[in-house]
Amino acid sequence: MKTTRRKLTYTLALLGTTVVSTHAQLLVQRFEPVGFSQVTITDHFWKPKMDKVATATLRACIVQTEEKTGRIRNFEKVARHKNEKHEGIYYDDSDVYKAIEAMAYSLKNHPDAAIQQKTDEWIDKIAAAQLPDGYLNTYYTLTGLDKRWTDMERHEDYCAGHLIEAAVAYYNTTGKRKLLDVAIRFADHIDSTFRVKNRPWVSGHQEIELALMRLYHLTNQDRYLKLADWFLAQRGHGYGKGKIWDEWKNPKYCQDDVPVKDQKEITGHAVRAMYQYTGAADVAAATNDQGYMNAMRTVWEDVVFRNMYLTGGIGSSGHNEGFTEDYDLPNESAYCETCASVGMVFWNQRMNTLTGESKYIDVLERSLYNGALDGLSLSGDRFFYGNPLSSAGNYGRSEWFGTACCPSNIARLVASLGDYIYGRSEEGIWVNLFVASNTTFTMGKTPVPVQMETNYPWEGAVKITTNPAKPVEYALHIRMPGWAQNVPAPGNLYRYVDSRSAAKIEVLLNGKPVTYQEEKGYAVIHRKWKKGDVVEVRLPMDVRQVASRKEVKADQDRVALQRGPLVYCVEGADNEGKAWNMLVPDNATFATQSYQVLDEPVVSIKANVSVAEPAPDGLTVQMKPRTIVAIPYYAWANRGKSPMQVWLPSRIKEVKITE
Amino acid sequence: MKTTRRKLTYTLALLGTTVVSTHAQLLVQRFEPVGFSQVTITDHFWKPKMDKVATATLRACIVQTEEKTGRIRNFEKVARHKNEKHEGIYYDDSDVYKAIEAMAYSLKNHPDAAIQQKTDEWIDKIAAAQLPDGYLNTYYTLTGLDKRWTDMERHEDYCAGHLIEAAVAYYNTTGKRKLLDVAIRFADHIDSTFRVKNRPWVSGHQEIELALMRLYHLTNQDRYLKLADWFLAQRGHGYGKGKIWDEWKNPKYCQDDVPVKDQKEITGHAVRAMYQYTGAADVAAATNDQGYMNAMRTVWEDVVFRNMYLTGGIGSSGHNEGFTEDYDLPNESAYCETCASVGMVFWNQRMNTLTGESKYIDVLERSLYNGALDGLSLSGDRFFYGNPLSSAGNYGRSEWFGTACCPSNIARLVASLGDYIYGRSEEGIWVNLFVASNTTFTMGKTPVPVQMETNYPWEGAVKITTNPAKPVEYALHIRMPGWAQNVPAPGNLYRYVDSRSAAKIEVLLNGKPVTYQEEKGYAVIHRKWKKGDVVEVRLPMDVRQVASRKEVKADQDRVALQRGPLVYCVEGADNEGKAWNMLVPDNATFATQSYQVLDEPVVSIKANVSVAEPAPDGLTVQMKPRTIVAIPYYAWANRGKSPMQVWLPSRIKEVKITE
Repeated sequence: MKTTRRKLTYTLALLGTTVVSTHAQLLVQRFEPVGFSQVTITDHFWKPKMDKVATATLRACIVQTEEKTGRIRNFEKVARHKNEKHEGIYYDDSDVYKAIEAMAYSLKNHPDAAIQQKTDEWIDKIAAAQLPDGYLNTYYTLTGLDKRWTDMERHEDYCAGHLIEAAVAYYNTTGKRKLLDVAIRFADHIDSTFRVKNRPWVSGHQEIELALMRLYHLTNQDRYLKLADWFLAQRGHGYGKGKIWDEWKNPKYCQDDVPVKDQKEITGHAVRAMYQYTGAADVAAATNDQGYMNAMRTVWEDVVFRNMYLTGGIGSSGHNEGFTEDYDLPNESAYCETCASVGMVFWNQRMNTLTGESKYIDVLERSLYNGALDGLSLSGDRFFYGNPLSSAGNYGRSEWFGTACCPSNIARLVASLGDYIYGRSEEGIWVNLFVASNTTFTMGKTPVPVQMETNYPWEGAVKITTNPAKPVEYALHIRMPGWAQNVPAPGNLYRYVDSRSAAKIEVLLNGKPVTYQEEKGYAVIHRKWKKGDVVEVRLPMDVRQVASRKEVKADQDRVALQRGPLVYCVEGADNEGKAWNMLVPDNATFATQSYQVLDEPVVSIKANVSVAEPAPDGLTVQMKPRTIVAIPYYAWANRGKSPMQVWLPSRIKEVKITE
Repeated sequence: MKTTRRKLTYTLALLGTTVVSTHAQLLVQRFEPVGFSQVTITDHFWKPKMDKVATATLRACIVQTEEKTGRIRNFEKVARHKNEKHEGIYYDDSDVYKAIEAMAYSLKNHPDAAIQQKTDEWIDKIAAAQLPDGYLNTYYTLTGLDKRWTDMERHEDYCAGHLIEAAVAYYNTTGKRKLLDVAIRFADHIDSTFRVKNRPWVSGHQEIELALMRLYHLTNQDRYLKLADWFLAQRGHGYGKGKIWDEWKNPKYCQDDVPVKDQKEITGHAVRAMYQYTGAADVAAATNDQGYMNAMRTVWEDVVFRNMYLTGGIGSSGHNEGFTEDYDLPNESAYCETCASVGMVFWNQRMNTLTGESKYIDVLERSLYNGALDGLSLSGDRFFYGNPLSSAGNYGRSEWFGTACCPSNIARLVASLGDYIYGRSEEGIWVNLFVASNTTFTMGKTPVPVQMETNYPWEGAVKITTNPAKPVEYALHIRMPGWAQNVPAPGNLYRYVDSRSAAKIEVLLNGKPVTYQEEKGYAVIHRKWKKGDVVEVRLPMDVRQVASRKEVKADQDRVALQRGPLVYCVEGADNEGKAWNMLVPDNATFATQSYQVLDEPVVSIKANVSVAEPAPDGLTVQMKPRTIVAIPYYAWANRGKSPMQVWLPSRIKEVKITE
């Protein structure tokens, strides 16, 4: 029954697609994202964060990569040919590439001679470490080349993927080919070593597939599309047995139990899964492969309907850095790796452009503003690897990690934020995220400058001004967020406790309410647009209490607070050091206020609740009415270690006496 | 001032030593331990545990070593010379050796043809994997012999140490030389590769030193003593820089910051430290090296006075598997590796025999009955790697571990328990632990059978019957436990809350109170002993509340319960699933009762305390008088996962509302 319905939806989705002919092959994408280099961000919320990334975060990446760890030294050692010892872990090259990718994105909007010089310097060192046959990996080159390509788990292809992504990004920003040529030589080496010979190879950590698709789109060389598809097609045939899994390690851990197109459940390592499906979506967009699409729709529902935290974080367990059982979403031990939320942004963007459905952006926005952004400190130079939804007070941010995937991952995401705001097709314009920015579309042959102004996510008013050189007809699609329509997230994993209709979304054209069509979660205004047309969107920004399905044991008799796209938390830093002593009874009331978390202006929530306090003699417990402060989840853990909770009890079921 | 006092104590200790001439070189030991093979244990408490080890634990070790992991297969692969892949981690050989050592000890008291046959079978495989030059390590032999002895961290010498220990044990039990000859060839290989050439080598994980001392005592070959001393002397000269530590990893982690004789603080990895000092004590005993003794006395005080949990566990942090700051003893995150408590037993035994001071046995007994024994399930086939002092209810025992040092370590300790009960010198007999058992001393030339009867640790009565063939004069030393004299542990890290003198230790000779000398913590009765003489010791077994020094933040406003040598805990399994909701007020009362934890008969404590409970409406909290049950700490976590606490609050300082 379920399958039938899904198939029907899928067929309808296909009928609605528009063929975009910018590439040689058939594209089924509903629309194309507008690349960040076409978008100027002026946003009060994001612009300062992008500036922090361009300065503090990139500085941290550089210092850690080059001075405090041996990541750059490894490349120098290869070039010196003096038999020196590899430092660090076998996948450390990837962090260099990801840092370069972040620098490339950042340079586009924040020109910085020193950063550019540093990048060129690193690129020279990387190029010098490439072998004549195109192979490039400092670990194997320094520890024994005879062992290369013998261990699928050792991330050689993963590092190659990040090299390719960095190379494409740096070429796009600077037009310089040096790193791109390195990446192409390595990609060709891999293609001839594996696909051409059809030598089985299951990537131990997916990533190269989506990277190859970037290379394909840049170069228009079919072999990279074929190689990406070939890598995906390797999975699920047992080639990984005894290599990346065995009788003790489940093949589901590495998504190698069945072929990708037959996958129905989300399993295993969360980041690997996200990267795989992002790559699969990219391949599907280029090949119109329904097999990938069918699988991904089913798996996506498994993620979002049963295995996603309210923060958009995924991966319940640090044990496998990934998924466990359906509805197993413990808060304090939640893994929710920053990289997995970044991966959710990647994958959901692809699903959105492929289907034209706004629900994917609802999930993307949730992961972006909560689970992913939480990975970066307000200062820009401290990081979370895991992003739990509660803490007893022992959990703090780090300067860096032994396995340092997360810092550069959140850096490259924030630096390329412009990628996720707008979409376009011949039919019209899509507004996905509400981020103050300017861009210019071309409709037909008419340039259409568009300006978005907003104080989102603190306020719900969004103003979109269109200035076409001459009147031009097209459809403007404005995303109508699920959270503003009593659907906190697609599916019914989460619901608003008070499902009274809060204020509805209002849309005005030139100051007057306008009728619009609703299509796939977008408000669509189709008209002939002229210079100075203003569309205003007013999103309701009530404080909402959220509850989980009863299957989520960790959240039972608890509520979370949400306002707009932001999930809130209670942190000890705002509440006399405590976050686990409060009860949100049915009659709790809420108000908002302007607030500061260090130098970050936020809207905080004041909640009138009940708090358990010891009597002065220390022998009894009293419940006292108190006003507590909740702050946006992404902003916690910036003022030292203190306890925190997203899900607050609405009923006392157990009491712990602690210090 | 402190140093002066310590030096004085040390000088006095030396003056009191007796030269025992059983070995060629000068021995400064105060007395010698009686080996377990000379002791027949009949104890109600320990005998069933030794039986469990002989059956369930060894069976688990065999199944895991041989079937469920590749530990034995690695040896077979080496012998087959077919270029097969190494399975597991580079130190896995050591688990095979430790299992053999445990089997050897167990076979001494529990003859078992199947176990003996299995051991011989493994020994054949091990012998077949030894290289002609004596080298034996499956990891390097299978992954590339050119790399052997290039990485000090990779536990080659550690594995060699465990091979030697196993070989000595198996030879002592069976008289079979095959494994001993393998061990000797490997020891000679190491000696000629390193000491003879004076090629610097800092052991990444100490162990070989104490093992070589066993080999030295068995073979009387000076080169093994010299090699043990050489290994110790390698530390602290910078040879480990860039090898086992570097600019990012502190040399204190591996006790390589200063030479062993200059070490004053306990630092770093707890098990490595314990093994190092055990080896140093063994060397000091053979060489009368005051440098080692001076260092060890200072370091021992640093462990016991500032860094030891009430359970005798050590190592506060899982991050370095070791020590952190003085007095940093968090309970829930306590690492307290089982192997570190086993190491505490090893080291304190040596310190006791070297000095004749009973305080070392106080610590040994605490670690043995609490921190170490907790590592083994009542069923004998489930294990703890870490032994925290509180749990929110998520922590459970495992069948095995990827790094599987702990199961075979606790197995070999329990199987050789007889080693720790008695000591002897020409001057007399020492009774260190109260364990029902029989042994025969020879005083002068007269055999002196001794029988100890007791229901310790449940009851405090101990009866020692002496049956010399003819009257013979000697001094009987009976340990007077610190815990029975208002000193829960040496130093003042812990104190009894109620320091009223509970019942004192009573000593009776043939039914009448006897005057005795107190010397170094022993009651000494010097007389001419005759057949049928009976000494009775009555230890006070009151329930005592223990408090920590104020510097231990984790234990402030908390008390722990202790009775005899046993630390107690409150586990949810006995208390309606809860262990964090109780308050021990000043007027709490305690009683004991016979109790069962599964099939383990124990004495439990019933405590009348105050418990925080939600009101039926779930909106307020009430404190209710309740009787709770506390069980011995070692017995927790045998009935599924449930919350647990050793340190119970005596004052409410914070309340957490939880589910």
